[in-house]
Amino acid sequence: MSNFADRLAEAIDRKASCVVVGLDPRVDALPPDLLARARQSKDDAADAVLEFNRQVIAAVAPHAVAVKPQAAFYEALGQPGFRVFGETIRHAQQEGLLVISDVKRGDVGSTAEAYARAHLEEFDADAVTLNPYLGGDSIAPFLDYADRGKGVFVLVKTSNPSSVEVQDLEAGDKKLYQRVAELVEQWGEPHRGRSGFSAVGAVVGATFPEAAAELRERMPHTIFLVPGYGAQGGGAEDCRACFDKRGYGTVVNSSRGIIFAYAKDKTPRWQDAVAEAARRMKDDLERVRRGKAT
Amino acid sequence: MSNFADRLAEAIDRKASCVVVGLDPRVDALPPDLLARARQSKDDAADAVLEFNRQVIAAVAPHAVAVKPQAAFYEALGQPGFRVFGETIRHAQQEGLLVISDVKRGDVGSTAEAYARAHLEEFDADAVTLNPYLGGDSIAPFLDYADRGKGVFVLVKTSNPSSVEVQDLEAGDKKLYQRVAELVEQWGEPHRGRSGFSAVGAVVGATFPEAAAELRERMPHTIFLVPGYGAQGGGAEDCRACFDKRGYGTVVNSSRGIIFAYAKDKTPRWQDAVAEAARRMKDDLERVRRGKAT
Repeated sequence: MSNFADRLAEAIDRKASCVVVGLDPRVDALPPDLLARARQSKDDAADAVLEFNRQVIAAVAPHAVAVKPQAAFYEALGQPGFRVFGETIRHAQQEGLLVISDVKRGDVGSTAEAYARAHLEEFDADAVTLNPYLGGDSIAPFLDYADRGKGVFVLVKTSNPSSVEVQDLEAGDKKLYQRVAELVEQWGEPHRGRSGFSAVGAVVGATFPEAAAELRERMPHTIFLVPGYGAQGGGAEDCRACFDKRGYGTVVNSSRGIIFAYAKDKTPRWQDAVAEAARRMKDDLERVRRGKAT
Repeated sequence: MSNFADRLAEAIDRKASCVVVGLDPRVDALPPDLLARARQSKDDAADAVLEFNRQVIAAVAPHAVAVKPQAAFYEALGQPGFRVFGETIRHAQQEGLLVISDVKRGDVGSTAEAYARAHLEEFDADAVTLNPYLGGDSIAPFLDYADRGKGVFVLVKTSNPSSVEVQDLEAGDKKLYQRVAELVEQWGEPHRGRSGFSAVGAVVGATFPEAAAELRERMPHTIFLVPGYGAQGGGAEDCRACFDKRGYGTVVNSSRGIIFAYAKDKTPRWQDAVAEAARRMKDDLERVRRGKAT
């Protein structure tokens, strides 16, 4: 199967979009019709979330290249949550979307193998997010799946305020996240595709644009997964520095800003508000990408 | 409910043991009778793992203070794995063991809240392991459960070879893991119990004894969870530096060395090999603890 970076690049070209929609379903924020169905049992709650995800996927599929289910929200539903996690992944792939499971795992070798098997084989996502704190042998088992078209996104610089406590520590002449960036670029080297990008991507928060510009130079072959668009404060302009000179190499995630768009936009059908939010985000980002390409 | 550190100290005194048994079940390593039952379907495999865990728990309960189910091995079983994960936790608690869910989660605030709800409320473990790369606001939601007797163990220095790639980077006049150690001690300060230790523990690998001695001084109020005894190469002597002067402040984990002890020790009943491995580890560590206390 094609390299994950090439699969992502193909989707970006085909859909003229770099939008990733985060599927972070909170039961208490579901639209009223689904919330009513969630109240009886844990299985009901999980089923309501699955139905919500299906309708969100239908609404955003024309505008997004991928969805990013956040494992925490499924784990919080207990055992039925994992059924819904798996069914959401399968359904999104059937609808032509790539799936990035946001699991942020990071563990020692034999355990990392089990996580890789869990998420890239059992749940069969196209890519996962990983935490670099344990170093290269916590990443390697996932890269064994690169020749099956799978990818990873390693946390480099996250968008939360306290990320500075660890990631911004001065490590020699660089900050820690800059050292991690060098490791990520290096881990990806054997896994580059025809697009020039590798199957080892990086999570780079949009809330620190100066850091993003510097990281783009430090990681020329690394696709950025940028969270923090919308609800976390960043906009398309903040993402500008993440794209390369041709407008490639970055996908941008929004979660609550899209899936719960109906909370602010009182159109009669909540699905229309979701679709409109995804379309607006796509257009917003395409303007920035086209600005880079000219 | 009592502070988690006090609950752990009480169990250590009552059982004269600081042993934690890692429940990392690999289906292909199950004893023959259970392996035969695991072959038909995913549900069968999960049921065989649950029965294995029940029998391991019965064998080690007299010798251990806690079990540490490693989430990866349950996730690798797909959806039925999470049923078994939950039932294992409940069963171990019924048998008088504390449960430390080894999940190594680490995520931004609202997602960390969902993970905390998942593991300290839904699955209802007594403690979880966490990754510090995202800083304090990825830890805080878990500490909201401290007054319900829950605890956390934050990765500081792990036992895998590539831990040096990130954790040992020089950050100012210290190594990164030493800076993280200071954060952990600080995060624990509002959560100290009568024992003097806090509900915020640290994961400190036994494979780096010099680092452990230095970390013991740097984190006087922090309980160490030490992996790497047995299968990962470390022995009780390597754990000596982790205990405080009175022989407290540390619990030591072994996973494969105990639960798969029958692979090396061909006693007629595999459960006897498991019990004997746990008893030997307890005695081995108690000698070291008593050596400190005198």
